[in-house]
Amino acid sequence: MAYINENYLKLPGNYLFAEVARRVAAYKDAHPGADIIRLGIGDVTLPLPAASIAAMHAAVDEMAKKETFRGYGPEQGYDFLIDAIIERNYTSRGIKVAQDEIFVSDGSKSDCGNIQEIFSTDDVIAITDPVYPVYLDTNVMAGRTGALGADGRFAGVAYLPSTEDNNFAPALPDRPVDMIYLCCPNNPTGTTLSRDELKKWVNYARENEAVILFDAAYAAYITEPDVPRSIYEIDGAQDVAIEFRSFSKTAGFTGTRCGYTVIPKALTRGGQNLNAMWVRNRTTKTNGVSYLVQKAAAAVFTERGQREIREILHIYKENARRVMEALDRAGQRYYGGKNAPYIWMACPDGEKSWDFFDRLLRETGIVATPGAGFGACGEGFMRFSTFGDPASVREASALLEAFLKRG
Amino acid sequence: MAYINENYLKLPGNYLFAEVARRVAAYKDAHPGADIIRLGIGDVTLPLPAASIAAMHAAVDEMAKKETFRGYGPEQGYDFLIDAIIERNYTSRGIKVAQDEIFVSDGSKSDCGNIQEIFSTDDVIAITDPVYPVYLDTNVMAGRTGALGADGRFAGVAYLPSTEDNNFAPALPDRPVDMIYLCCPNNPTGTTLSRDELKKWVNYARENEAVILFDAAYAAYITEPDVPRSIYEIDGAQDVAIEFRSFSKTAGFTGTRCGYTVIPKALTRGGQNLNAMWVRNRTTKTNGVSYLVQKAAAAVFTERGQREIREILHIYKENARRVMEALDRAGQRYYGGKNAPYIWMACPDGEKSWDFFDRLLRETGIVATPGAGFGACGEGFMRFSTFGDPASVREASALLEAFLKRG
Repeated sequence: MAYINENYLKLPGNYLFAEVARRVAAYKDAHPGADIIRLGIGDVTLPLPAASIAAMHAAVDEMAKKETFRGYGPEQGYDFLIDAIIERNYTSRGIKVAQDEIFVSDGSKSDCGNIQEIFSTDDVIAITDPVYPVYLDTNVMAGRTGALGADGRFAGVAYLPSTEDNNFAPALPDRPVDMIYLCCPNNPTGTTLSRDELKKWVNYARENEAVILFDAAYAAYITEPDVPRSIYEIDGAQDVAIEFRSFSKTAGFTGTRCGYTVIPKALTRGGQNLNAMWVRNRTTKTNGVSYLVQKAAAAVFTERGQREIREILHIYKENARRVMEALDRAGQRYYGGKNAPYIWMACPDGEKSWDFFDRLLRETGIVATPGAGFGACGEGFMRFSTFGDPASVREASALLEAFLKRG
Repeated sequence: MAYINENYLKLPGNYLFAEVARRVAAYKDAHPGADIIRLGIGDVTLPLPAASIAAMHAAVDEMAKKETFRGYGPEQGYDFLIDAIIERNYTSRGIKVAQDEIFVSDGSKSDCGNIQEIFSTDDVIAITDPVYPVYLDTNVMAGRTGALGADGRFAGVAYLPSTEDNNFAPALPDRPVDMIYLCCPNNPTGTTLSRDELKKWVNYARENEAVILFDAAYAAYITEPDVPRSIYEIDGAQDVAIEFRSFSKTAGFTGTRCGYTVIPKALTRGGQNLNAMWVRNRTTKTNGVSYLVQKAAAAVFTERGQREIREILHIYKENARRVMEALDRAGQRYYGGKNAPYIWMACPDGEKSWDFFDRLLRETGIVATPGAGFGACGEGFMRFSTFGDPASVREASALLEAFLKRG
């Protein structure tokens, strides 16, 4: 008799964004004419860069002719894309990364979710609180945690509070941990870790032979010079860190799907090379990423592509500025927005996240994401994402300001 | 200190096709001028159907405009594709499948590799021998096997010999098993299971509450009327089977990447619904498949697409006929080819697979895949794939015939 993976039973019923969608649908049913403005899930709204569009048309034409048709590609990705990634995102910042240290994937969500497979199920994970739910949920499924407690926390997990009290720079864990998930710029708080803070983590990982799983999906939004774009800007990180990057928020690839993961060959544990383990994993479980998508991603790194994504990023950053100004005028406390497409707002008068969510939706039609959905320390906060259409964001900012001023 | 997943150490060093590639590269280094004809890895050579090309150009144009741009799609796939799949591949054969029982993916290799995650690691797997290496390797990684023995077999796995002696219809296991991988039409033998044979397996699974993982990636190659195209043609399979299908070999999608998995909602184990568990798994670990790719896949099901893939399949089937005729003329024993793009040839005079591989490559430049790479029972066989360019296959057939006649 086939038994199921009982770890799934530990997970709460509803994925955060599914619950948001459920409440929005219920609201729309009750108010058929009402306008909804989405500042909730972090989905982009601007079209792909023209450079990627042109590259995809050309790639489609290649697939139409026997002479230029592409079948199975290299599982780690095509060299044309890997070389462009290395040149633009690493060499240009003085970081040495070899071709076979890059793994192109269908998005960094998959890689962040699957990477844990190469680690022992006995390893202890550390995650910041609040945080993107994928790191935790995939480890629950793999059996790396105990049960969910009444406090909303899984037994056996080292939660690293990331709050106003510590300026969103979590303290080192108070007990040994093995796999440390860091997201920088952070989803959902929109905050970043300084060079010194990252050094602290790299040193901890080196001293304790831990591995840092560094999610830099939002690196393109960093504006402040002291914030590292890659963990490999920190000396010694090559021996302890795996980095995840994405085209989703940089170039509008949420529906096109492309990301990549860097595993330095210097990273070994228990005498085993983690890069080689991931090669074995990927070659066994995938056949790589669509040729067309890789062509679209490579075009992002051309001069034209870089110019176009700067324009796209500028629009989203202007959205963030608009929301921040509205919050400033309403005298509301918030974080993020400067180096990230997320703004993390403290609910007025200590209101709970889901209560504020319901009230905001009911009174303004604005959908934001309740901070409590990202972890216990997110309670009392809301995440606003700034990927919306500029006109909607302008409208939402005015509505939000008036709503907050009404109190 | 981070520990690694030690199950990886149980795996033999080289993935089968990597070893084939290594030997071919060595041969090319030694014989720089030599022509290589590839009948090895099962990669297609004909371009995508024109219907898919047109659909992709249109989809790329949609991604270029704000009004028609697509961000995150539904994780299970767009309805336009799911509906087309249901209508063409299920309703047309009298099988009822609901929209939410289909999961579109980036290829059936990933799904075949990942599906084991929702099962207990204590479950015992049964696999036919020889078989596509992905089923076994992913279960080794997950810890569902013991060590690799000197006989080339992993402890704790129920191997189901699939040989000339049983006409490639393996007997039921002689001890309890929980997860049964069946590949039909089979890779590598090219053979199929009759309706009665499949009934036997469905009944076994029902009686023992096992689950059948049914890989039908090559279903489009079936020509004989009695061979089921889907396991759901067998009464009662809805309660016991998960089915995997692919666009790779049907429509040339090996480099474009699309497949799908069917998990009936009637399939429960230990009181848990496997469809719901897979929803949780996929929504947590992926963001679905590229919109462009789903558009290309949906176009395969239009009248034009169906006409075009019939032409493509006809060419590959003609290739198979040519190779079979050459083997007939050389008086060689072989199987498959009729309902599958693979021909499974017994090496002459009981020669070992890798010895024949080396000799064939050296004397003719033909690359085929050694049967021993697919399992102990594959020793003494070779797999020829018939996806080549017709002119190359013609040339290869003549060379192969002459080679075999020389003895």
